Amino acid sequence: MEKHDQEFIRKKNRMLVFNSIQQHHPISRTDIAKLSGMSAATVGRVVADLIELGLVKETDQISGGVGRKATMLELDLESIMTVGVEVDRNLTKAALVDLSGRIIVEKQQLIDQNEKQLDNLIDAIVRLVAEMAAEQGIPHSKFIGAGVGLPGIIDSEQGVVVFSAQLGWRNVPFAERLEARLNMPVVLDNDLKVKALGESSFRSLDVIPAETVENITALVSVGSGLGAALIMDQKIYRGSRNIAGEIGHSIIDPNGKLCECGKRGCLQTYITDLALLQEANQIREVSNLQELFRYMEQGEPWARSIIDRACSYIAITINNVVCTYNPNSIILTGKFIEEHPGMFEAVNLKLQEFIGEHFSGSFEMFRSKLGERSVMIGAAKLVLQQQIDYGLIHKS
Amino acid sequence: MEKHDQEFIRKKNRMLVFNSIQQHHPISRTDIAKLSGMSAATVGRVVADLIELGLVKETDQISGGVGRKATMLELDLESIMTVGVEVDRNLTKAALVDLSGRIIVEKQQLIDQNEKQLDNLIDAIVRLVAEMAAEQGIPHSKFIGAGVGLPGIIDSEQGVVVFSAQLGWRNVPFAERLEARLNMPVVLDNDLKVKALGESSFRSLDVIPAETVENITALVSVGSGLGAALIMDQKIYRGSRNIAGEIGHSIIDPNGKLCECGKRGCLQTYITDLALLQEANQIREVSNLQELFRYMEQGEPWARSIIDRACSYIAITINNVVCTYNPNSIILTGKFIEEHPGMFEAVNLKLQEFIGEHFSGSFEMFRSKLGERSVMIGAAKLVLQQQIDYGLIHKS
Repeated sequence: MEKHDQEFIRKKNRMLVFNSIQQHHPISRTDIAKLSGMSAATVGRVVADLIELGLVKETDQISGGVGRKATMLELDLESIMTVGVEVDRNLTKAALVDLSGRIIVEKQQLIDQNEKQLDNLIDAIVRLVAEMAAEQGIPHSKFIGAGVGLPGIIDSEQGVVVFSAQLGWRNVPFAERLEARLNMPVVLDNDLKVKALGESSFRSLDVIPAETVENITALVSVGSGLGAALIMDQKIYRGSRNIAGEIGHSIIDPNGKLCECGKRGCLQTYITDLALLQEANQIREVSNLQELFRYMEQGEPWARSIIDRACSYIAITINNVVCTYNPNSIILTGKFIEEHPGMFEAVNLKLQEFIGEHFSGSFEMFRSKLGERSVMIGAAKLVLQQQIDYGLIHKS
Repeated sequence: MEKHDQEFIRKKNRMLVFNSIQQHHPISRTDIAKLSGMSAATVGRVVADLIELGLVKETDQISGGVGRKATMLELDLESIMTVGVEVDRNLTKAALVDLSGRIIVEKQQLIDQNEKQLDNLIDAIVRLVAEMAAEQGIPHSKFIGAGVGLPGIIDSEQGVVVFSAQLGWRNVPFAERLEARLNMPVVLDNDLKVKALGESSFRSLDVIPAETVENITALVSVGSGLGAALIMDQKIYRGSRNIAGEIGHSIIDPNGKLCECGKRGCLQTYITDLALLQEANQIREVSNLQELFRYMEQGEPWARSIIDRACSYIAITINNVVCTYNPNSIILTGKFIEEHPGMFEAVNLKLQEFIGEHFSGSFEMFRSKLGERSVMIGAAKLVLQQQIDYGLIHKS
């Protein structure tokens, strides 16, 4: 057996057992074996590893079933801590996230738009994390790393923000810079990709038993931008340059409206906040989506028409994602959906019109479970996943 | 180590070594180790397996380099044979394909459209295979299986044609029926998926060394239909129901032309043969694409306009596939491209207009290497892959 093959299997088994405990604790070794399809011997070995790494501990609880009593396992929530960060245009949010994926504490800070933005941002993140650690009395040695979700094209392997229109960055080695200041491993990724990871890892075992069907989850997000992300087998699908899912720039009409990317008729020009506001302002002065929705509620037909058309194009987007990826779950999220009651249902209704016969019934559509915290939780999950994969965690 | 984990690694290594020999034979064990990154001991063990299975043999040739002489390995082309079949609306093609992916002999037959089509078809395939085997003097015991590529939605695991508009079938257990008559294992899959598998497996090691970058190949096919297929790591990406890549029914314009699926503005209504002919016939009676192309060559502006627009929409299709899958290779194929000189270049030129900044340079676009034989070769590759995976091959 090759060393890297052994490594691969060890990683896979470690994540599998960890996920079983994360989602079903307290749980016995026997039940982990049943759930994962692994032998008792392997489960025992992997659990011993996880206990050694400080991720898992035995509890006083005893299995209630008949027959031999079994010691139960649960996550050792006190042993380690991760940081999850979301960086957006004007706002930075950071949270301390425990092994179970639960946010212990979170803070946020508005970021000025000026030439020192990058330094400001790093200062802010470092300060937020330090404050939260101090308030909670968590020593630095417990932190195994920080995950950061940002809008844009991210080279996750190198930790570089290749391009972010929202942040105005090009080729910024953000992970390295933040790592030096935070003094812990930092992993970057695109915000939608970590959001999808967060949402799917806290949902997958609920919906579909891991052992029966490969769970393929596509997330579609609609707000200031439009994008998708795909999770296969609890891993982010990245494509060759980590830009898979940039469906906002798939083209709908070559003679359509000009997009910020310079092309015409990109899908996002039909759906994003800016697109809807531009349309609304042809009729009346409208400064934000809340206002547009108020006009709709007041019965203005033009406002209803704009929002109705947006829902149609979101349903079309979902159809196109489903045709391409053929997932079994779709998570529909983003500010357009989250902040305006009824929009999830409205899109769902439109789907009947736009989903073809053979795809209808091939997927279930869900709302976000984690809401505004999903990027932070997903980013924390990414760094945890990586640290468990590479076995870099050492008990302090 | 779990038994199924050992199995997984064994399969992976077996395919890796087999592919190295298939694409570089004659090759020494040392060079396989270098190419695959595996240890000499593992390569030795896997090669012994492959020799035992009858897939590989040692040759008289000796490595020409300095230092210790090494025995070379090559495929044992005489030991086993696969069958590759393509079933299309009116035509069935079958080939005997050897271990190197080379077609030894091929035959084809027109199929009548009548109520006995399924029986006719199975009769025809059985007869074609029997004739070819007799002509080549290949005993039945050498055949390890047949792969079949068909248009439509295929449940590859169950061997069932779920739906094929082109064949007029619904829920036909084709693999079982054909297996009983051919008396060998039969694997079915969608024609574009096996085509992509064929094209990518005979290209991947040429272009990108397997060990450096994960090779993600998307195939886009334009002809009587429009579809895509994705190959990751030499495996077909299927999605949850093996219908990933059905991009012909992604929607471009909700008010567009009616599609055969009952929706409006499906991408295929802009591109397929039928769509172009319908448009042409608004101007002049045109009965097939060849005629339309002749009008264009004669300088008819309406014919040029129709074909030019089709090329734009094909470029848009490629943009949309690239945004979603982010592959490093695109294979552009299908009758529209293969049968009309200049169309590959025309689409390539259009791409500059439709590919966004961050995707430009992210992929290379290729023509089909295998042409009209790609479905047969890919289908044969699929059955070989499966038989090597499951280790079902036994030396006769």
